[in-house]
Amino acid sequence: MDTMKWEDGRLLLLDQTRLPGCAEYICCEDHGTVAEAIKRLSVRGAPAIGAAAAYGLVLGAMKLDCRDHGEFIAGVEKVAGFLSGTRPTAVNLNWALERMLDSIRSAAPARPEDLIDIMLREAEVIYREDLEGNRKMGEHGLELIPEGARILTHCNAGSLATAGYGTALGVIRAAHEAGRRVSVYADETRPLLQGARLTCWEMVQEGIPVTLITDNMAGYLMFRGMVDLVVVGSDRIASNGDVANKIGTYGVAVLAREHGVPFYVAAPFSTIDIRLGSGLEIPIEERNPDEVTHIGGVRMAPEGVGVWNPAFDVTPAGLVSAIITERGILRAPYEKAIRAMY
Amino acid sequence: MDTMKWEDGRLLLLDQTRLPGCAEYICCEDHGTVAEAIKRLSVRGAPAIGAAAAYGLVLGAMKLDCRDHGEFIAGVEKVAGFLSGTRPTAVNLNWALERMLDSIRSAAPARPEDLIDIMLREAEVIYREDLEGNRKMGEHGLELIPEGARILTHCNAGSLATAGYGTALGVIRAAHEAGRRVSVYADETRPLLQGARLTCWEMVQEGIPVTLITDNMAGYLMFRGMVDLVVVGSDRIASNGDVANKIGTYGVAVLAREHGVPFYVAAPFSTIDIRLGSGLEIPIEERNPDEVTHIGGVRMAPEGVGVWNPAFDVTPAGLVSAIITERGILRAPYEKAIRAMY
Repeated sequence: MDTMKWEDGRLLLLDQTRLPGCAEYICCEDHGTVAEAIKRLSVRGAPAIGAAAAYGLVLGAMKLDCRDHGEFIAGVEKVAGFLSGTRPTAVNLNWALERMLDSIRSAAPARPEDLIDIMLREAEVIYREDLEGNRKMGEHGLELIPEGARILTHCNAGSLATAGYGTALGVIRAAHEAGRRVSVYADETRPLLQGARLTCWEMVQEGIPVTLITDNMAGYLMFRGMVDLVVVGSDRIASNGDVANKIGTYGVAVLAREHGVPFYVAAPFSTIDIRLGSGLEIPIEERNPDEVTHIGGVRMAPEGVGVWNPAFDVTPAGLVSAIITERGILRAPYEKAIRAMY
Repeated sequence: MDTMKWEDGRLLLLDQTRLPGCAEYICCEDHGTVAEAIKRLSVRGAPAIGAAAAYGLVLGAMKLDCRDHGEFIAGVEKVAGFLSGTRPTAVNLNWALERMLDSIRSAAPARPEDLIDIMLREAEVIYREDLEGNRKMGEHGLELIPEGARILTHCNAGSLATAGYGTALGVIRAAHEAGRRVSVYADETRPLLQGARLTCWEMVQEGIPVTLITDNMAGYLMFRGMVDLVVVGSDRIASNGDVANKIGTYGVAVLAREHGVPFYVAAPFSTIDIRLGSGLEIPIEERNPDEVTHIGGVRMAPEGVGVWNPAFDVTPAGLVSAIITERGILRAPYEKAIRAMY
């Protein structure tokens, strides 16, 4: 199933909060609906958020009542600012919005309807490039995935987190397609269970053997020698190679090093935020306490408890064995490797 | 609320699977009901299982139709074998049953009704000693808990896991009662959420500030410098100091060492199984996959996934800063320290 589809001037977003029990699309006719879908994680995963925001900006532009190029750009910038405020950590969101704005800022003076055409083409390029980039990541990643590898992943960096195919799961998919009999351990990834709900769903659909564990089992799984490598996605990578990703990634990385298990990150080059010197500068979103105290709408914890609910953490570059991008594989020292590939 | 109560020849067990939403007792009139309650974790926590099994053995003995001492003992041994088979990891279960059997094996020849009296007194001693032992653990532990300590704990090693007061939470309680303004971070402890449901409930009732996190946040919590020490309970400790405890404990211990955070284990001396040379010999229970795929009866993962569901893991002694027992604090080398205190 497609994560998102542009059809008849509307954006259809697969509602990932309801998977795997129910597979339904949210029909977005304006940028407000897209923003809401991003906020409540109906669409999530850094690259998917970027692509959805790009289409959301087109929807916002279509509603503008402007006569000239300058007025139109000012209107679109306002919509972009609104969409940009939905989630703070994934850099791909702002990267995609900036790219969309650049497409019209750099265009020759034109009527709004022509500028909307330019924007729609740019959104489609972002979407298509992400898909193609993921396939290239898969090809590059192949050299890191041995025959029969037992691979641990955290959260969902699959086709649902991207325009399709996936980053971390794209690498796994490519190995599977290449005939290497890989198998997957999926951390369930509390609080919102993207591993249990989304990664397992994708793997079952692909026919890739998948075993679900709770997040706190990852350490013992490695202790027992049941994991050959870890591969995860990322929401933002600083210029020194520090990696922000779903909460829990850092713990997995520490455990991987403790057990001599390679820890790989797969992400499009657009995830690298060269403006940031280190991961300490990456803003970490803290979300609603209810995500932790409740599961499936049912309260699990007593009234009166405090809650800490960061949605992401930062894994220092020193724990990252390699970063797989569509341009090739980056290895430490990352600062130099990133600059060389820019 | 009492974890268990002996009343009018029946054992009342607080049904911990329903906390904190509902606080109700299961009335056990025979050992089969006690065994069922242990298996489904209505009563859980190594010391509590031991005490419940002791009372369960009394219930089983009361149902025997035997005329002489030898026949009675044989009957009780059979019941003990049945209760012993409920859960494999916590050594306190067999320790309590053996102690109960010893009480009648070493008694002068007597009528069954007198032997039942001896057993009931022994069960009460086991229960009372556990309670007193926990308070002593709390006193010994005080020297490890500084003023204002921010303490991370995993699962529930509280009054609910024992005859009362608790092991790990007993140490925290003692520090709180001594006026050291401690605060607690509780790992929710998937799959059965004993941290979210039971530890938070106990802390809220005691007025000890508690913040709930998902298990995968523990690493980032330490990375951010928000934890001063970790204290957990144990289900079995090998003679070399390796510690079996709720799944996820090992990962917390690795993360604690990574961040220079002391990692303490609080457990009664009966948790030490001197017959075992190392933690590798501790049997690790694997439980029903539904505990992982479902939460609150609702299926979260798609059909077709495999599941790995070990209920415990083993933390090597090298990661344990100290073991707090009712007899005093043990430090490495544990083999020697344990032998000295035996």
